[in-house]
Amino acid sequence: MSMERKTTLPPEAKRVFKGEIFEVYQWPQALYDGSVATFEKLKRADTVMVIPVTEDGTILLAHEEQPGKPLTLGFVSGRIEEGEDPVQAARRELLEETGYQGEADPFLISEEQPFSKMDWNVYLFLVRKCKKVAEQSLDPGERINLRKVTFDELVELVVQGHMSYSSFSDRILRAKLEPQKMRELYELIYSS
Amino acid sequence: MSMERKTTLPPEAKRVFKGEIFEVYQWPQALYDGSVATFEKLKRADTVMVIPVTEDGTILLAHEEQPGKPLTLGFVSGRIEEGEDPVQAARRELLEETGYQGEADPFLISEEQPFSKMDWNVYLFLVRKCKKVAEQSLDPGERINLRKVTFDELVELVVQGHMSYSSFSDRILRAKLEPQKMRELYELIYSS
Repeated sequence: MSMERKTTLPPEAKRVFKGEIFEVYQWPQALYDGSVATFEKLKRADTVMVIPVTEDGTILLAHEEQPGKPLTLGFVSGRIEEGEDPVQAARRELLEETGYQGEADPFLISEEQPFSKMDWNVYLFLVRKCKKVAEQSLDPGERINLRKVTFDELVELVVQGHMSYSSFSDRILRAKLEPQKMRELYELIYSS
Repeated sequence: MSMERKTTLPPEAKRVFKGEIFEVYQWPQALYDGSVATFEKLKRADTVMVIPVTEDGTILLAHEEQPGKPLTLGFVSGRIEEGEDPVQAARRELLEETGYQGEADPFLISEEQPFSKMDWNVYLFLVRKCKKVAEQSLDPGERINLRKVTFDELVELVVQGHMSYSSFSDRILRAKLEPQKMRELYELIYSS
């Protein structure tokens, strides 16, 4: 798959700082009264999120701990490394964080820029027909326990507020209000 | 009201950059295998969000345009200036963005840190018994049209996905699933 990376930085933006995770860009921006101000925006490596589904329909979630952060329950996720495309990153993160691999290709569900002041894309993939092929291989800054759930259990975890916020958990919540949308979500995850 | 500002920066964090909006902090963090990595977090001025309610129960929303950003429909909001406390900032932003002023004191509904890698508090206030006392007084980088809605219209805007995401819009969505929670929200907004 070839994907053009979306950027929301104007072409005249200049990098003024580069840290471990974040870069800072600035540019002169004309305001509504004709005056000019220095505008600022962050940039960080893009993220992939993965929803792995096994052959029997089980969905794998990541119960994750990181130094200095509360325990969160969410989807498998990680940053896209230099030189990787989103699909490669999705396969790698899935294998590292779960030990699972999909027979099917990662399927792009959505692509978003969650934070307006940050040039940061989040790609959400579904990977069907996953099988365990290895042990987890985690970074020294990660602790991840897998949680295996059914579709209905995932919906209930979102409704009860136990899942980290993501646009997909928001979509599940909205689907809870409309049976037709819930059927579409079910089909998205299970039809091949 | 006196409010201790919550910070999630560890005491040993050092500022390595200060821009127009964002500051960058770093610190050495021990990982699970005993190795040490440089961790990084952003800091920005805290934000107030305000839900103004007039005497006849109308809720004021802000239809806002900023250079280089899509039009958004959300709550009145702005940054807390140097030397201001959240309540003062809520009163000022309400007056500047709407020309309205509340007879009642701003009432704190919630306080959150929406982004784990950012030391940034968002305070959400309800201001009841609002009256128009002046014209809007906007920054040259803002264009705001007021939209007056009923409680039911606000709920419908959230359900239809027309409101910018906030923890309060998420709360409205969840309340839509549980009549008891919706009654509580209604009482929160209208009982004095």
